[in-house]
Amino acid sequence: MRASALILAGGSGTRFWPASRRRRPKQLLTLDGERSLLARTVERLAPLVPAERVWISTTRDLAPAVAAELHGIDRERILVEPLVRNTAPAILGAVARLPAAVRREPIAVLPADHFIADPAAFLATLGAAFGVAARDGRVLALGVVPRWPETGFGYLELAEELPGPPGLRRVERFREKPDLATARKLVASGRHHWNAGMFVFTGERLLAAAREIDADLVAAVEAWAAAPERDDLYAGLPSISIDYAVMERLSGLATLALDCGWDDLGSWSALFSHLAADAAGNRVRGEGFAVEAGGNLLFADHGAIAVLGVEGLVVVQSGDVVLVVPRDRAQEVRRLVERVAAHGRDDLL
Amino acid sequence: MRASALILAGGSGTRFWPASRRRRPKQLLTLDGERSLLARTVERLAPLVPAERVWISTTRDLAPAVAAELHGIDRERILVEPLVRNTAPAILGAVARLPAAVRREPIAVLPADHFIADPAAFLATLGAAFGVAARDGRVLALGVVPRWPETGFGYLELAEELPGPPGLRRVERFREKPDLATARKLVASGRHHWNAGMFVFTGERLLAAAREIDADLVAAVEAWAAAPERDDLYAGLPSISIDYAVMERLSGLATLALDCGWDDLGSWSALFSHLAADAAGNRVRGEGFAVEAGGNLLFADHGAIAVLGVEGLVVVQSGDVVLVVPRDRAQEVRRLVERVAAHGRDDLL
Repeated sequence: MRASALILAGGSGTRFWPASRRRRPKQLLTLDGERSLLARTVERLAPLVPAERVWISTTRDLAPAVAAELHGIDRERILVEPLVRNTAPAILGAVARLPAAVRREPIAVLPADHFIADPAAFLATLGAAFGVAARDGRVLALGVVPRWPETGFGYLELAEELPGPPGLRRVERFREKPDLATARKLVASGRHHWNAGMFVFTGERLLAAAREIDADLVAAVEAWAAAPERDDLYAGLPSISIDYAVMERLSGLATLALDCGWDDLGSWSALFSHLAADAAGNRVRGEGFAVEAGGNLLFADHGAIAVLGVEGLVVVQSGDVVLVVPRDRAQEVRRLVERVAAHGRDDLL
Repeated sequence: MRASALILAGGSGTRFWPASRRRRPKQLLTLDGERSLLARTVERLAPLVPAERVWISTTRDLAPAVAAELHGIDRERILVEPLVRNTAPAILGAVARLPAAVRREPIAVLPADHFIADPAAFLATLGAAFGVAARDGRVLALGVVPRWPETGFGYLELAEELPGPPGLRRVERFREKPDLATARKLVASGRHHWNAGMFVFTGERLLAAAREIDADLVAAVEAWAAAPERDDLYAGLPSISIDYAVMERLSGLATLALDCGWDDLGSWSALFSHLAADAAGNRVRGEGFAVEAGGNLLFADHGAIAVLGVEGLVVVQSGDVVLVVPRDRAQEVRRLVERVAAHGRDDLL
């Protein structure tokens, strides 16, 4: 069985500022290994999906950096979104542009900027999902077995088991990001998994399913896919997520349980938890010196960071910007980005 | 009356690391104004001692940087110590090398790296000291009126008043750096001033007084001053302070009270107290952004520092090194410098 992957690498965000910038979003950063999250996403797939069957969806601005990061990738496999239009146009548009032979085979849609602690477990589940998509023509959403009552993710409510590999179930419905009390109930129920934005299907089946739900949308997407130089056609597409446009409305959506130490790396604090600690409990990327200081994340993409007498801080040196924030407030970095933007210092963003 | 100044600019230290480095010690840093502490020391004197009567004592390593900082200074007025031999050889050697006419006039010996809040008060006291040195041939140590029980300075114990300007007294003796209880008593006594390492005398009188105390030392200094290319002669001089070699043993040493907001800027924390605060109580040099953060010193000699949710920190970005330390532990920066040195990273020092 041959399978492909479509990696969504067009995202932008501020959670890893100042390491992430407008021209260098999170997926292009080297956060936890020797290469970028994007490159690691491709490398991780290799035993199951060789690099020459990996397709990338990204923006026009980021396409050169993506090509440089994945040196040697065939430029035809970088599918450029002319404008930002959320995941439904991005995924449907990319699938519509795939060669017909590829569209008949299973494909995994995967974000480019996530962390996976156990790649073998990830590949085992992905392989099983490819098998279900090929055999049954099903569309699958991978459901991450929750490890804590996270309020930052949506959840998949699981219905009955389906014939197939262990853990294959029908999805009853999508749950929006819950409050903490609800999240605790969902996790305790054992019937709710995190929606990680990872899907497996054959392209033909996805387009057929989407056409049943919204024929106009698919027609518009296919019109652009037939003339991708026509930015105006893409501009006319609605800015809508694949969940809302297709997945939540799709009867027979299936899910496989994914238990591979997945994390979306949503903040500097999340990165802290995935790096190895030194004797004082500091996590250091790049060069760091610490005296009577513990539990800090020291992240230097050049030079060195020296700390004394501080606990639980995130300290980042990237380019010409330094960030200092307590680990437990790292998710508020966006507020600093807004402050910098308000001062007209777009050169720092 | 003509007077001169001899500025001691050969010092090194680690208290302002990473802004200060081996090749760029504190006196060459721009900490509190638009120009370096050294340049500000020269500028501050100008109403009383024009730049062309300012002499600089510094090391061979630092001489080029000193000349660049004081652009236009006559290189003959930069007196180079071939080796580091403490303040007695530096001051006596420099005085012995002055032109005979300058040696007959009053001269002030001043550190290059101190802070003075009230330059007019400083100049008024200095002018009075020049008058005493010219009229009476006295050697004077300026005594800073203490503003708190500092344990990091030595003290001058004051004896009887002397005829002359108000506040002119004989020095009874030098007190070493005291412990806190002793410091409190000294300050409460009203008879002890801080020894700030600032002296006023005529060169001829200083050499004569030193000759009475240690004729061999002065002879050795004068032998080098007559052949300053002979590094071996300087190398043979003892490494000894001017206080110990001369001032403490000199009968009739006088002092004038100096009350000009003087501070030796002994740490990042001291600098904090001399910079203007923004609305949140942060003190910023260079570019800083703060959200829900107060009481921090943000010091960036390039780029920008962004902080959120932290209080009372010193954050420095200088060259490719970042320092984070609580303000109340800023005097421990030396420990980080030792750690960096222990890792063989002299390039960061």
